[in-house]
This record gives sequence, C-alpha cells and structure tokens, in this order.
Amino acid sequence: MHALVKTAPKAGLSFIDCPDPRPTSYEAIIRVQATSLCGTDVHIYNWDEWAFTRIHPPRIIGHEMCGEVVEIGADVTLVKVGDYVSAESHLTCGACFQCRTGQAHVCKNYRILGVDRDGSFAEFVALPESVLWKTSVDIPPELASVQEPLGNAVDAALVEDLTGQTVLITGCGPTGLFAAAVARIAGASTIIATDVSEYRLSIAKRLGVDHVLNAKTDRPEIIAAAIRDMTSGEGVDASLEMSGSPQAIHHAFQAVKNGGRVTLFGIPTKTIQCDLANDIIFKGIRVYGITGRRLFGTWYRLAGLFKAGLNIRPVITHTFPLKDFARGFELIQSGQCGKVVLFP
Amino acid sequence: MHALVKTAPKAGLSFIDCPDPRPTSYEAIIRVQATSLCGTDVHIYNWDEWAFTRIHPPRIIGHEMCGEVVEIGADVTLVKVGDYVSAESHLTCGACFQCRTGQAHVCKNYRILGVDRDGSFAEFVALPESVLWKTSVDIPPELASVQEPLGNAVDAALVEDLTGQTVLITGCGPTGLFAAAVARIAGASTIIATDVSEYRLSIAKRLGVDHVLNAKTDRPEIIAAAIRDMTSGEGVDASLEMSGSPQAIHHAFQAVKNGGRVTLFGIPTKTIQCDLANDIIFKGIRVYGITGRRLFGTWYRLAGLFKAGLNIRPVITHTFPLKDFARGFELIQSGQCGKVVLFP
Amino acid sequence: MHALVKTAPKAGLSFIDCPDPRPTSYEAIIRVQATSLCGTDVHIYNWDEWAFTRIHPPRIIGHEMCGEVVEIGADVTLVKVGDYVSAESHLTCGACFQCRTGQAHVCKNYRILGVDRDGSFAEFVALPESVLWKTSVDIPPELASVQEPLGNAVDAALVEDLTGQTVLITGCGPTGLFAAAVARIAGASTIIATDVSEYRLSIAKRLGVDHVLNAKTDRPEIIAAAIRDMTSGEGVDASLEMSGSPQAIHHAFQAVKNGGRVTLFGIPTKTIQCDLANDIIFKGIRVYGITGRRLFGTWYRLAGLFKAGLNIRPVITHTFPLKDFARGFELIQSGQCGKVVLFP
Amino acid sequence: MHALVKTAPKAGLSFIDCPDPRPTSYEAIIRVQATSLCGTDVHIYNWDEWAFTRIHPPRIIGHEMCGEVVEIGADVTLVKVGDYVSAESHLTCGACFQCRTGQAHVCKNYRILGVDRDGSFAEFVALPESVLWKTSVDIPPELASVQEPLGNAVDAALVEDLTGQTVLITGCGPTGLFAAAVARIAGASTIIATDVSEYRLSIAKRLGVDHVLNAKTDRPEIIAAAIRDMTSGEGVDASLEMSGSPQAIHHAFQAVKNGGRVTLFGIPTKTIQCDLANDIIFKGIRVYGITGRRLFGTWYRLAGLFKAGLNIRPVITHTFPLKDFARGFELIQSGQCGKVVLFP
Repeated sequence: MHALVKTAPKAGLSFIDCPDPRPTSYEAIIRVQATSLCGTDVHIYNWDEWAFTRIHPPRIIGHEMCGEVVEIGADVTLVKVGDYVSAESHLTCGACFQCRTGQAHVCKNYRILGVDRDGSFAEFVALPESVLWKTSVDIPPELASVQEPLGNAVDAALVEDLTGQTVLITGCGPTGLFAAAVARIAGASTIIATDVSEYRLSIAKRLGVDHVLNAKTDRPEIIAAAIRDMTSGEGVDASLEMSGSPQAIHHAFQAVKNGGRVTLFGIPTKTIQCDLANDIIFKGIRVYGITGRRLFGTWYRLAGLFKAGLNIRPVITHTFPLKDFARGFELIQSGQCGKVVLFP
Repeated sequence: MHALVKTAPKAGLSFIDCPDPRPTSYEAIIRVQATSLCGTDVHIYNWDEWAFTRIHPPRIIGHEMCGEVVEIGADVTLVKVGDYVSAESHLTCGACFQCRTGQAHVCKNYRILGVDRDGSFAEFVALPESVLWKTSVDIPPELASVQEPLGNAVDAALVEDLTGQTVLITGCGPTGLFAAAVARIAGASTIIATDVSEYRLSIAKRLGVDHVLNAKTDRPEIIAAAIRDMTSGEGVDASLEMSGSPQAIHHAFQAVKNGGRVTLFGIPTKTIQCDLANDIIFKGIRVYGITGRRLFGTWYRLAGLFKAGLNIRPVITHTFPLKDFARGFELIQSGQCGKVVLFP
Repeated sequence: MHALVKTAPKAGLSFIDCPDPRPTSYEAIIRVQATSLCGTDVHIYNWDEWAFTRIHPPRIIGHEMCGEVVEIGADVTLVKVGDYVSAESHLTCGACFQCRTGQAHVCKNYRILGVDRDGSFAEFVALPESVLWKTSVDIPPELASVQEPLGNAVDAALVEDLTGQTVLITGCGPTGLFAAAVARIAGASTIIATDVSEYRLSIAKRLGVDHVLNAKTDRPEIIAAAIRDMTSGEGVDASLEMSGSPQAIHHAFQAVKNGGRVTLFGIPTKTIQCDLANDIIFKGIRVYGITGRRLFGTWYRLAGLFKAGLNIRPVITHTFPLKDFARGFELIQSGQCGKVVLFP
Repeated sequence: MHALVKTAPKAGLSFIDCPDPRPTSYEAIIRVQATSLCGTDVHIYNWDEWAFTRIHPPRIIGHEMCGEVVEIGADVTLVKVGDYVSAESHLTCGACFQCRTGQAHVCKNYRILGVDRDGSFAEFVALPESVLWKTSVDIPPELASVQEPLGNAVDAALVEDLTGQTVLITGCGPTGLFAAAVARIAGASTIIATDVSEYRLSIAKRLGVDHVLNAKTDRPEIIAAAIRDMTSGEGVDASLEMSGSPQAIHHAFQAVKNGGRVTLFGIPTKTIQCDLANDIIFKGIRVYGITGRRLFGTWYRLAGLFKAGLNIRPVITHTFPLKDFARGFELIQSGQCGKVVLFP
C-alpha cells in the first residue's frame, strides 16, 4: 500500500510503498477513507525537538481518520467487516488508576497512533477493536475523520454546561473553531472569539460566533472593554483558552467573571507569568486542564451533537489526495486554513 | 383600577374596581402589561379543596406577569421608574436554612403572589423590589409574562446538561412545551414527547420535537418499543416528567437508560404505585424533584436562553383582554390551548 | 477440593468434593481464605422464585471473598502468585454504553460470581484478573472478604459528600451498618439509625451512631418527632434507605429536609405507594438509586477508608468453618447477627 | 469602651477609649468575648502599601470574633439579646450577579469588617443581623472566634469530597492547619503537610497529619520522592495550597495525580512562573481558586464539623488581653505561633 512515512530522523516525510498491515487477534484493518492533519503531524514533519525525542523511524504517521473495516482478527466482536469507523488515537493501558476509574483520557501509560505505532496516513491501518468508533454513514468522510480533535473541543467546551451562558474562545485554530461550533449548538447566549488571523476569525463568524476580536490589531485594553460591553459589564461565564498564547491566556483569565470558569486546552510552549491572586483566587473561579477525550463518553456525546445539528463544515477548508500532503503542511504553517483533510 | 378578584369563598372570579395599590418603602408599583394563566389560577377559579384551604378572599389572583415600573418606595434601589420587569412569584423568607444556603427555591416559609397576597390580574400590582426581574425590551409582553413558568421548565430540563443527549418529555402542557423548547436550544440530540392531546403534540412538533407519541391512542408497549427504536435500543439519557399522570410517570421511568436521570415536575394528585427496585435502584439512576425556580440563577439563565434564540412563540396560543378572562379559563379546561395571556 | 454446591433445583446446599478449577489464559486461581454470606446466598439456599429462574445447578455459590493467588493464566499481568486479593463480583461486558462510559456498575449484561458462574464457597475459585483487587495484608481475611458489600455501602453513603452533615440510615442489616461506619469516618455530624431489631441497633451504637430508633416499638410519629429534635427541626441532609421496607422508605423521605437527598439501596419486594408530590417534588430533593459498586473507583476509595481508620469490626459477628455453613444460614434468617464469614 | 484603633496613616495601633457603637434598625450590638488576629491585621498594623490604599483612619480594626448580643435594632429578627454569635466578615451587596445567584462569597462589591467599617478589636461592635452566626454555647470563645478563617479552610479543603483520599497541604499557617484538621475529620486517608517552620509542622502532627516535610531543609527532589512514596507512586488526589509561596505552589502542582485537583488559597505576593502545560493541561486536573466562605453554607457545615468532633484546639497557641495586642503582633511576625486570640 501507499503510506506517508517518516523514514529517517530528519525533516520531511516520504510517500512510499509499504507492506499492508496484518491484524492481531484483537485488531481490525481499516481502509482509510479520510485522514486529517494535526499540529502534532507538523511537529513530526518539521522534526522539532519533541519529535526527535519521541518518534523512532520508520514510522507511518497520522492519527485522525475514518474508514471501512475490511478485515478483523479472530477475537474481534465490537466491529465487523463493512463497518464505517473512526478511531480514538490514544491507546490506553487499562491497568493504571486512571484507566480503572473512568479517567482513561489521562492514562499514565498511553500510546498514540501515528506516534508510538504506525498511523493513518496510509491506505490501510491496523487498530485494536477497543479504539474503533462506529460512525453514522450520514457523516461524510471529511467530517468523520476529524472527530478526534472535535472530541477535544467537546470536552474543552462542555466540561460544564454552556446552555444560556456567555463564552469567550481565545484562539481560532481548528480546535478552537470546533469549540465555537459546539458552544453554538449547546445554546450559549453570546460567543466571543479572538485570534490574530482575519482568515480564521471569518470562519468563526460563519460558525455563528457573535463577536470576533483581532488580538493582533486590537489593543488589549480595547479587547477587555469590548468583552465587558458584550457581557453587560459582567465578564463571561466561561473562557475557553484554545491557543496556548500567553497573551490569549491573559485575556481568558481577565475576561471571566467572579465564580466563572476557564478551560485551558492550548499548549503554551514554555512557562508563563501568572497572576494567580487576581486571576484565580480572588475571582473564586474553576480552571480545567483538558487533554484528550473522555473514553468513550465524549464519542457518544459527539454522535448526539451531530444528530442535534452540529455544523462544523466551514472548518474543513481544504482537502487533498494523500500524495499531495506537502501542500497541506504548507497551508497549515501559513495559517490560511482551517482543517486540512487528506484522501488516501 | 380594574382587577380580577376572588370576592367570596366559592367558584368564579369577579372583574371589579379596586383601589390602586400603594408601595411600602421597599416595594414598587408595576403597571401590568401582560399576565398569564396558570393551573393554579384554575384551581382558585374552580374553588377546589386546595383553594378552599389556602385562599382567603377577597384576593386579587394571578402570579405570572410583566409590566412597567411606575412608582417606587423610598428605599428601592434595584429598579427605577420606567424599567420593564417580570417577577418571581415566590416571596421567600430569607431566614431559613434553605434561603441562607442558596436554595431559596425550596424556602420553608415562602408566600406566593396571587395566592398569599394580591396578584397580577389587575392594572397595577405592588411587589417587593427583591422579586423584580429586569427584562430586555426585545422580549414582547406576551413572552415576558411567561418567564415564571418558563423558569420551571429551565430547571426541570437543565438540572443536568442536555447537550447532545436524548430526552423524553412526558406531558405537553405549557411547561412541558417550554421544556421541549429549552431542550431544543440546549442541543439535545433527540427529543421525544408524549401527551394525550393531538393539539398539544402538534405544538410540540412546531417547537422542533423530533418524535411525538399519543399516550391515549398508542398502547404502552408500542410507546416503549418506539422509544427504544428512537434511541438505538438504549433508552433516553433523561426523562422529564411534566404531567403528573401515573401512566406518564411510568413511561418516564421505563424509558430512561441505566445510569440516566428522571426529572419529576408534574404533580400527581395522589399517591402512586412505584416499582423502586426496577425503576430506580437496579438502573442506578438519579431522580430530581423540581419545584419553583432557582433564585435568581434561573432568571439569569433564561435571559441567556432568549439571547441564544429560544423559541417559545408557538406555546402562546391565545391572548385576551383581562375582562374576557372567562374565555381563557374555559380554554384551559378544554385542553385546546397552550399558554393563555391576558392584557389588562 | 471441597465446595458448597447447589446440586439440584431445590432448597439446600451440599458440601461436597469438586474438581479444582483451572484458569483460562486471563484468569487466576485464588485459594479462598474467607468468604462471607449475603442475602443473595439465602435466596439460593431457600430456592425462592428468583433463584429458580436464575440459577442453573450444579453451581458453586458465594461471591464475597478474599484469598491468595496460587496460579495465573498465560496472559495475566495485573496480579501474580502470592498476591492477597478480594474480587469484584460483577463480571461486566466491556462493550455496552455503560461499560464504555465509566458506568460499568450498571452494565446491561453483567454476570455475577456464584450466580452465573461458579463462586467462592470453595477452597479455590477461578476469576478473571480484571475483577481481582489487590488488598493490603494489614486487613485480616474476615474483613477483606466483605469489601464487596462494603463497597455498596460506600456508594450508598458517599454518592454526595457527608462531611459535617446529618444523616438517617433506615435499616441496620450488614450493609446498613457498613454505611453507618462509612458515615462516621466521613465526618457526618449526626447519625441516626433505625431498625426493628435491638440486636442490630446495638451494633449500630458500637459503630458510633449517635441515635438509634426502633421502628418496631416506636410509633411513626414518635420517630418523626425524634428526628426533628435531633436535627434542630430541619430534617436530615441525607437519608440512606438500606432496608427495602415500605415503612422505612416512608421514614427516609419524610425525614429529609428540603433540598436534601435520599439514597435508595434496599430492595423492596414489590411496588410501593409513593407520595411523589410531597416526598420528592415539593421538597426539591435528589434521589439516587444505588446498585453494585463503581468499578473500580469505589475499591480505591475503600482502600483509602481503611487507611483513614474505618472501623467495621463490630459488624462481623460470627465466623464458621465452611462445612458448618448451615449454622450461618440459620443465623442470618434469625436476624441475630451482623455479617457471617466462612473459612474454607 | 476600649478599642484598638488605627488613628493615623502610619504603622502601629492605639488602645484607646472610643464611644460605644449604636445600632441602626437592622444591626445588633455584640459584646466581644474573643477576637483573633489575622494576617490582614498585620498588614494594617505595619501600614504596608495595601493598607495605605485601603484603610481610612481612624478605624477600629479586627474581623474575627465572637460574643454576646447585648442590644438589637428595631427591625432585627434573626437574633435576640443574649444570643452567642460569631460573624461573617464580608458584608455583601445583595444586588450583584454573584449575590443573586448563591455566590455571595465572590460579591463584586463586598466590604470587610475592620477594614471598610469599624471592627471587633473592641469591647463592643455593631453588626448587621444578616452577618451574625448563632454559635453553640458548647464552643468556647477562643474557638468560636476563629470560625471565620476556619470557614476558609473548610471551603479550601472540601470544595470536593476528601473522604478516603490522599491530600497534600502546602503551608501550615493557621488556615493551613485548620485545613489539616478538616481533612482529618473528613476521613482523608493520608495527609501530608509541608512548611518551613518546625514549630508549625509540630502542630500539624498534633492535628493528626500523617507525614510532615520541611520545605526549608528538605530538597525539592526529596520532597517529591517522599510524596510519591507516601501515595504508592500515584501522587495525591488533592493538593491544598495554603501558603502563597512560589516553591509551595510548585510542589502542590507537581504532587497531584492525573485527574486530581489543586486548591489555591494562599495569596502569592506577585506573579509566578507557571508550567500550565505540564502542571494543569496534560494532567487533566481541576484548579479551584478559594476566597472567603460560602454564605452561609460553609457556616452551617462548620457547625456540623464541630458536632462531628473537629479538633482545632492545638491551632490556638496563644491568648492575650486585648491591651497586650503588641505581643500578639510580634508573635505572628516571628512565625512561632498558630492562631493568636485576644480577649477584650
């Protein structure tokens, strides 16, 4: 089969022929119909420090996908040939405290598809049945493929109920945009989004965000004043920090009202100066660190959100054949895109 | 002023002249713009046993309303003349355990507007500033008036998050219909509603309910099978019991999945045979008794829901001048209506 | 080995020789050190209607136990030979909605040890590694054996925090007594217990219960008045219904304050007349159906409670060699005991 | 009467004669029986920058107290002459979003006793009836006086249930010590405490803390390793940060397990470098900012904790007559004390 492979410990990826994967007794083989690009893939492509320490070539990368089950191992019972599936990318240990208490999303020993084992940027991928997620055929492949990061957005947005509440989303990368779509379908009263890219803010508007603010061109005090205006002077009930930017993190804390909550999802690249007294303690707020997706509560909820009418279509801005992967990586690094999906 | 008064301990109401109310130092006078009929008013109108023991004529009745502040007492600071307001109907004591711990909606000593003191079926009503709720002028009087029962529906529906979840609503009286509207804006995935009236089920459809079932014409086993079908065999995540009917209560418990939840809001007229083992214990569910509205969290949430696009317009089926109250009471008792609003 | 077996579809049990169990690849063999009697075992012993429809002889019964791992299957990694373990009695399917969302305690397809497969009233028992629970050797076998029902009590008592709260426990069978011990270590302010047996109430006192009431000899209005007195007229924050008795269920609801909570754990033998309006709705309370134990959060919490000093010793009133099982069954049916533990 | 007064905008306090306070219609006069020193009082005594901007002399300071009601205003109904009371120190506005939604502890407009109005370092103090808390006469004045900071500790410790859980407390000042006492009565399995003072760690031991670590003499990696050892390698379920020290904050985050929680109560004097990625996001934890006390849920809970046997006696290390206040302030600044209580 054709696959996108990190063949050597250096920048770049190779689109080459590889042996078809074979299933173990508890695995299934999926014919990949769509597989989407994530920031993690960019790190591996660029071979940054994190990639250097974590990835052991040769490795087929990619971890967001959907496709059809074409073969199953002897002991597989959860799926059958012909099923349309997506996959949880975290393979959890099942034995640690977290796994045994319903918190597998923070498993201490998880391994990641396309990082610690061969991934989905390929015509076929082998996956344990336990991570497969049967998906409604009403959801086309380019949307079914992005359920993994969409699940991040669901947990980031809905860690507490948003219905009838005001929300600030700082950062309109794909996951931030997904969070905006989730907040909209959840009945948020007012959604405010910030980013430094007009391109991305325009997608936010198409998702139904009420107000957008450009953190590059608007001064911080203007942004703070605007948020106050949009929330009757109260501040927002919830801030969803989806960027990892120090400036955005500052906005997220500053905007939230006393007794409100802040979700931290975007990953800062280094430590940050925090005013814990004024931003967290005196406000009496709750801060939630969000990583991964609840297994499999979030996936069930996601299925429900699609039924409810969740609209993420505007976030999928570009699709390419798998062999044209380089154009996708370029686009992501330009910032002039939402989610990029590849078709093997 | 003109007002609708229970003048004597017997059935009926009189539309008569009364003295204009005067405010105490902490009260405001509201010119009533709209005031809506509730089941409680029907009990008083018919002078049933409950009314006989609770109401001491003469009494102006009515407790759902909105209007304009036209006069304020000396110590009033929360509202000013000209404000457009609705009102919480429960006047709570402020001194009991419940009031002092953020649970005033279950105050042990509350008094009700239009029951324990003169109400809103009148041109003017005097109300303590503490129960007034400033309402956006974007909300027309016939909708602003029904915020009190709408608040019941908000608490019944949103005691836990409904976003992406399946929900059964048993009973499509006005509050059940409001709950359907709330579930829809909250992003419920599938909403199923039951009632015995085709008229009311048709309103439910107009609110966006996905499936309606007629508990009068469909046999119980058909209803149970239909609910299973609509929920992939799982049962619903949440049942909202809004009728008080023993049959509907049975449906509500039967339909909910293991680990789900049931809201009890409809008031049964007497004790009911319950299968606690199979309906609650073995299922491991949560049951919530809902009464009143959280003060004032629910009112704030309600304002947010209107901003989010909550659509309750189809529930308001009839409006009359206050003097034509008798037509309203007749309609309610016929079941051929949603909410009936009177204009003084 | 010797084992206690239901050999034929009729009352009674036989203490006979059986083949030693052999492990599958994912099972371990446990040498049983202690195994305790539960009400379920009595149903099987007496061969009542439930037993008749559920049990297929021959069957070794018993599901509460502890012991030493003496052999493991080829794929076992969670335990090793020599480990001191107890076991979760519910073998869950791992595939249903509940299992996949952290709610395996309400799995739709669970099988029970000693009911649906051979149990622990034997010298050895085979168990999947996934249900084994490594137990501190500081906990002697007669206490380690009862962790399964103790887990029920933990979930019944701690479904919400009890620290500093007033609690009523209706029913002082072994699980009710365990709940009293849990409430005590959790820092409940006032614990009131009811039962119809002075013997059991005397154990409750030894566990630190503050007040006991005999529901057989004290009239209902006396009990209600006493509970009011003991709670400054407020009613209790939490009622734990551990008996299944209609009278006790009535007390549990009547005693709880507005905004409080009721746990239903005891299984009524038939449907019960419930006053949903006054007992649940107007009080605005939460009702929790409790069954099984959270897998494995409750087992972890249990380990923590033992470390904190949980005292359940007074509940273990009798121990016998396994062959003297008949004396244990007689005792349980007399009500003149707490927990009875057998030693193979 | 005699009172301790900041008479001029400079360091120090004067013990002088003042007019007896007179109650307004909704106030009561309390004869102060005990009044305790808080860090806030030290800021005022030393006249630091915060005090300079906030305090307008002359001002009687002090905000932790208990005493006897000796006179009441005309409209007072919640207390009567002779009642034994303590007081909530935050006078909340009653009108803001937070006050109207059960979150008055984060009122946007609160005023503090002894800061924004005359306080309790005096023979008598006037207080609105709404902040008075009737206290059991079983609690002696030196303990009844410290209920205000004890309430902080209750909220810091019990924001989530601690029963059966492992907990780290960083900082053993009086409120950290109170938190240790609360964790103990709540049934925490293992309590670890850190501080830089052996004196304070010795008090922690007397409160039942299982392990103490000296952050001054033990190296950070030793402390981290010790905490891992004490928690079977898991890390703690909950960290309570009660010091405000950057080093302690680092320990608190480092020690908590994936999926755990951190309470931030201690106030850092400036911004701090935080590793949000590793400390909060990848761990998937919850962080709670705690300030003030829930009105009045925390006070009710506190009454329950005293009944349950809460032992805070070892924290009250010194008592003095009010006129000897200077010795108290010296002691606090030496760190060689727990709580210091003054008797007017």
